[in-house]
Amino acid sequence: MAALTIEQYLQGIRAGDRQVLSRAITLVESTRPDHQELAQQLVEACLPHSGRSIRLGITGVPGVGKSTFIEAMGLYLIGQGKQPAVLAIDPSSARTKGSILGDKTRMNELASHPKAYIRPSPSAGSLGGVARCTREAMVLCEAAGFDVIIVETVGVGQSETVVAQLVDFFLLLMLAGAGDELQGIKRGIMEMADALVINKADGDNLKAAERAATEYRNALHLFPARAGGWTPKVTTCSALQQTNMDAVWQIVANHQQLMHDNQLWQNRRSQQGLYWFKESIHQLLVGSLHGNAAVQQLIEEMEQAVAGGQVSPYRAAHQVVALYLNAR
Amino acid sequence: MAALTIEQYLQGIRAGDRQVLSRAITLVESTRPDHQELAQQLVEACLPHSGRSIRLGITGVPGVGKSTFIEAMGLYLIGQGKQPAVLAIDPSSARTKGSILGDKTRMNELASHPKAYIRPSPSAGSLGGVARCTREAMVLCEAAGFDVIIVETVGVGQSETVVAQLVDFFLLLMLAGAGDELQGIKRGIMEMADALVINKADGDNLKAAERAATEYRNALHLFPARAGGWTPKVTTCSALQQTNMDAVWQIVANHQQLMHDNQLWQNRRSQQGLYWFKESIHQLLVGSLHGNAAVQQLIEEMEQAVAGGQVSPYRAAHQVVALYLNAR
Repeated sequence: MAALTIEQYLQGIRAGDRQVLSRAITLVESTRPDHQELAQQLVEACLPHSGRSIRLGITGVPGVGKSTFIEAMGLYLIGQGKQPAVLAIDPSSARTKGSILGDKTRMNELASHPKAYIRPSPSAGSLGGVARCTREAMVLCEAAGFDVIIVETVGVGQSETVVAQLVDFFLLLMLAGAGDELQGIKRGIMEMADALVINKADGDNLKAAERAATEYRNALHLFPARAGGWTPKVTTCSALQQTNMDAVWQIVANHQQLMHDNQLWQNRRSQQGLYWFKESIHQLLVGSLHGNAAVQQLIEEMEQAVAGGQVSPYRAAHQVVALYLNAR
Repeated sequence: MAALTIEQYLQGIRAGDRQVLSRAITLVESTRPDHQELAQQLVEACLPHSGRSIRLGITGVPGVGKSTFIEAMGLYLIGQGKQPAVLAIDPSSARTKGSILGDKTRMNELASHPKAYIRPSPSAGSLGGVARCTREAMVLCEAAGFDVIIVETVGVGQSETVVAQLVDFFLLLMLAGAGDELQGIKRGIMEMADALVINKADGDNLKAAERAATEYRNALHLFPARAGGWTPKVTTCSALQQTNMDAVWQIVANHQQLMHDNQLWQNRRSQQGLYWFKESIHQLLVGSLHGNAAVQQLIEEMEQAVAGGQVSPYRAAHQVVALYLNAR
């Protein structure tokens, strides 16, 4: 394929051309310096056309039915006249090749719908790198006219903390039965969630799901309210039977309304921008540090000594940074 | 006072001389480069004699009775033949001058007890800096023979996340009545706590405290278990009447036993060391970056542009880091 200019990319994206959008996201994910430079210019050009979607994060342990839920939610939103884009954050996908959203057949109907756009997780190494790509893909999707961006994340590791810094609303998908199923959920997630949705509330499972919802409602009222006085909501749904999607979406819409009424919406977005600015400075500096072979070797030696308790962490860090700054 | 040599410091600390210990901690808190160099050598010399205490973190909103609790717990521990040292993390103390532990009269009896040692929070700027000082003060206290290190933190801001990376056991002190009182507790704390203790379980308040304990017990069983299968425990106490301190301590001791049995104890300490190594590299690098006046000015301009949505956070960070690395 012939390379596109910034203007051609922008034009294609603004016209809602999915092929150009996909090529643009690939550019954002590329590690080649010339691609990076072009990608940054493109993101900048898209910025004025971005930011007007609802950004919805979804997490839950494997097996909870995330992709079925996202398909049901996406189709419901299309029925409401919306255009959903689905992105994914899965830092493990670099290792396992594939994993979440890699297999598009999981969301067959949504993937082939002309109003929807689905993009698998970039497999570009670190969580910070993956998050940066997803954040910029979000800007491109918004410039392409998508007005609900759904960010899926695996329910393990640290990806949820990162997604919470990317989205307006964070939804935790769960199963009835509690107890053991929860083991896979990282500590702290429950308290980041703006809503808990108990999936698979169908057939024999209906009563158990409703009981679980009541239990979680009772538990969550013990936790502090969020910005604007929002208290996390709990509901049930069946993604498989596509029931109760309207109730789930109503919760998201109510939250959005509350945030707008309290001027908290723009504030949250600005704070997120500053968070990623700081994070990116950190990533770039640390990346440069690790890029120095002698420094990297010292780091590895020091890690041994620190873990073994022979050197204090601060002194070890001091030596590493001194070597790096002197080497430059 | 005449300056001490490393050997004199070490000898005084190992002999349990509180005056030398205090001077050593002041050295650790000093920002003068020559003090820093001496402090780092001293910490290193103390390392082989450190690490054998139980490190106990305590948090809770203002008014929950943290200092009364710590006094009661400290006196109980002394009765058990232990030697407690109390440190504090309060990054706000730089601004407010004083605040937690600044007023030693709050723990009158414990502060004057020959078996105890109490040290106010350093007022040295950033949370990272305060945490570093506390971590090193902990090493010095352990080398001085203190076998329970209690780290107090204010129940606001991010200090709890930091303390959780410093201690073996994290205790959240609460009051009955729930609901509104919880507003002051940062999200995520509930899920970091290894135990919840409802204080002021005395007089008219006794029944309410026990009811609250039951409610929290029911709520917490919905949350994932910790390393080694530990589930957070809930109990009540009256710090004022010094009742139930034995039950609280038994929980800490049981946790300690479980961690040792599962080889998780040394593992957690090593992980914490590596965490602080990484954190310190970050702090030193970012400190050096902000120390450059031209870079600092660009950062401030970029913050405006990022918050206003005119520049992407990544591109802004790229420009800042490029300026810094080229300037060196």
